Amino acid sequence: AAKSAKKMPASSVTSIIDGLKRLYLQKLKPLEVAYRFNDFVSPLLTNSDFDAKPMILLLGQYSTGKTTFIKHMLKANYPGAHIGPEPTTDRFVVIMSGPDERSIPGNTVAVQADMPFSGLTTFGTAFLSKFECSQMPHPLLEHITFVDSPGVLSGEKQRTQRSYDFTGVTSWFAAKCDLILLLFDPHKLDVSDEFKRVIGSLRGHDDKIRVVLNKADQVDTQQLMRIYGALMWSLGKVLNVPEVSRVYIGSFNDKPVNDAVGGPLGNELFEKEQDDLLSDLKDIPKKACDRKINEFVKRARAAKIHAYIISHLKKQMPSMIGKAKAQQKLIDNLDAEFAKVQREFHLPPGDFPNVDDFKETLRGFNIDKFEKLKPRMIQAVDEMLAHDIPNLLKTFRNPYG
Amino acid sequence: AAKSAKKMPASSVTSIIDGLKRLYLQKLKPLEVAYRFNDFVSPLLTNSDFDAKPMILLLGQYSTGKTTFIKHMLKANYPGAHIGPEPTTDRFVVIMSGPDERSIPGNTVAVQADMPFSGLTTFGTAFLSKFECSQMPHPLLEHITFVDSPGVLSGEKQRTQRSYDFTGVTSWFAAKCDLILLLFDPHKLDVSDEFKRVIGSLRGHDDKIRVVLNKADQVDTQQLMRIYGALMWSLGKVLNVPEVSRVYIGSFNDKPVNDAVGGPLGNELFEKEQDDLLSDLKDIPKKACDRKINEFVKRARAAKIHAYIISHLKKQMPSMIGKAKAQQKLIDNLDAEFAKVQREFHLPPGDFPNVDDFKETLRGFNIDKFEKLKPRMIQAVDEMLAHDIPNLLKTFRNPYG
Ligand SMILES: Nc1ncnc2c1ncn2[C@@H]1O[C@H](COP(=O)(O)OP(=O)(O)OP(=O)(O)O)[C@@H](O)[C@H]1O
Ligand SMILES: Nc1ncnc2c1ncn2[C@@H]1O[C@H](COP(=O)(O)OP(=O)(O)OP(=O)(O)O)[C@@H](O)[C@H]1O
Ligand SMILES: [Mg+2]
Ligand SMILES: [Mg+2]
Repeated sequence: AAKSAKKMPASSVTSIIDGLKRLYLQKLKPLEVAYRFNDFVSPLLTNSDFDAKPMILLLGQYSTGKTTFIKHMLKANYPGAHIGPEPTTDRFVVIMSGPDERSIPGNTVAVQADMPFSGLTTFGTAFLSKFECSQMPHPLLEHITFVDSPGVLSGEKQRTQRSYDFTGVTSWFAAKCDLILLLFDPHKLDVSDEFKRVIGSLRGHDDKIRVVLNKADQVDTQQLMRIYGALMWSLGKVLNVPEVSRVYIGSFNDKPVNDAVGGPLGNELFEKEQDDLLSDLKDIPKKACDRKINEFVKRARAAKIHAYIISHLKKQMPSMIGKAKAQQKLIDNLDAEFAKVQREFHLPPGDFPNVDDFKETLRGFNIDKFEKLKPRMIQAVDEMLAHDIPNLLKTFRNPYG
Repeated sequence: AAKSAKKMPASSVTSIIDGLKRLYLQKLKPLEVAYRFNDFVSPLLTNSDFDAKPMILLLGQYSTGKTTFIKHMLKANYPGAHIGPEPTTDRFVVIMSGPDERSIPGNTVAVQADMPFSGLTTFGTAFLSKFECSQMPHPLLEHITFVDSPGVLSGEKQRTQRSYDFTGVTSWFAAKCDLILLLFDPHKLDVSDEFKRVIGSLRGHDDKIRVVLNKADQVDTQQLMRIYGALMWSLGKVLNVPEVSRVYIGSFNDKPVNDAVGGPLGNELFEKEQDDLLSDLKDIPKKACDRKINEFVKRARAAKIHAYIISHLKKQMPSMIGKAKAQQKLIDNLDAEFAKVQREFHLPPGDFPNVDDFKETLRGFNIDKFEKLKPRMIQAVDEMLAHDIPNLLKTFRNPYG
């Protein structure tokens, strides 16, 4: 209890996210719109970008217990869940909170503006027909969204059968998710080629990866040590990061632990591991919130720099004749113009966008039509960074958080 | 008991080695001498090459329990052994059987013809003063020789202090040894840079490596799992072989297992692991014997091919004039001459020596002085390969082996 008292209450997370949403509309979005940040850097944010719950992605060879794991967390099956020894889950399923139990087909999910899945349309209808959203009312789902996935098969068979870019999809979800659970089963330990590619597709998100050695009560201790050792041995090579991934060893289903095999110590170990994993999961909303704040602040800084660049370019334009020539000259010498902006406003060169990409986009615009510098707008963002966000955190964040 | 009945009795090993020694003197050595195999390929074998006991090399960071491990195996300290929490063993110590307890300094060991350590002189007197042979009468030492080593320190300090090529020495011993035990201590798990180089120096002998996670009773089960996992994670990368090294988890000293921490299951696991390691060690003499036979057969084949090459070159020499020119021409077209030998005697090109190295050595000899082909000598070696060695194995090898 002492431990959970230290967690940030879920209501604070909601309040912080709501606060950011408000600040975005009032202070940051006007600046982005004025200087076309969306055309140069990143689309404007929508409500769904703020509201999306932290997501946990489950990946693993078939029958390692991914669907059972979710059932265990929810203490209930999600609509459309299939559990069984043969490859059962045949699609990606997003399990999220909803007013009543229902399944929404992928094609519908992808076009819904209030859901953060429109990006998945790039994987085609072949994928969308293997994508689904399961909704149900559930207290846990108010804080976390799960993503169940079809099991990876060993051998080449599976890959040729897939009608869509599987690792493209896992990579897309890895970027959107806050935690990636890789499930292993002591009896299916080999990391198949497709699973290697899947793990490869998580690159850049290694800090989100946790490994679960599931069904650990199915083998005796000496076997378990061998299996666990072999798993770490090959994961170290496949993940290719120096830090060891946290591995949770246990049996994540509702049946009691099989202590015929594991023995009393197995029981004790598995319980401790289960507790550790649960407290890791409970941390996700707070961590996801921290990341959202962090990304929001980074975005605000980038939008300011962008405004300085755009207004600086506008200022260099002649008022009457020779505009086309002047535009061409500015584009040709864009590095020098960037340097001027850096000196004038004391900005670190490392925070500037890539010159060549910027040139490329710039060619499509008429610099003369750009906005002049509007100090009030910049001031609003500065205020937001210096006061509003810190106040927001001070007000809502649990002091023990 | 059923298991140990399957092991080859030690007397058979001795008989097989004695048989090989005899066959070498009677059948192979005459061919090697006649065609100067020792000048071109490998020195003539001496008794010490046959008699050397299988060796176990112990490596690890300091204080991981290497010296204690040997004490545990011998149930006694070897002469000059030092055990303690600070870096204690400051030299390489070969522990072998002898009529009475004594230590022989490295400089003396290296010049003794009946010991297989003369090769170590290449590491200089700075090394030899940190090398020692401990002898004592002991039943186990009649079958196995141990090599204790100074602990590897973490950080760069140690390396700059060493007055000799440490990894050169470990690499030399790795080649001579039959088993390499890498000891780890749960409290000193980091693989330091020097230890990485040491492990790197074992390359090519990966099949000899066994890992011991020692003092495993000093931490609780959940910690042990973390530590073991982290060890496998980094070893997988450092060893860089696909096969998982066998790791023995336990506490290899005479004190009873600390079950306050490990609990009853710890005890049981550690005992099983200890049994497994002991039976692995008991297998060494037989495996070492197998390897000696294998290397002997390979050597005999190489000596035959060498004899064919040398006698073929001799045959190409003119009987009267133009010898110098002929020799030069043979050396220049050595590839073609090799090809002729391969065709004439139906020999696989892959078994032939490197042409350039051979040319280089050949320049120092007068081909005209080489021996002609002596079919009797070849026939003796063929007989040895086809009959004598198989008979030797049939007579002495335990049918269950
Ligand atoms: N912790 C566990 N202990 C023992 N058996 C388990 C455990 N978890 C799942 N199982 C069993 O393993 C089988 C596969 O479970 P499940 O369908 O949840 O796996 P999955 O990873 O979702 O498979 P797929 O990739 O095919 O969807 C089922 O028979 C289930 O009852
Ligand atoms: N299995 C064990 N359990 C608990 N303590 C141990 C165990 N083995 C050794 N020790 C203790 O660890 C310390 C170091 O042991 P030891 O001197 O054998 O290590 P070492 O690897 O030979 O060290 P060095 O590299 O310095 O020679 C000693 O205090 C010893 O008593
Ligand atoms: Mg499933
Ligand atoms: Mg020592």
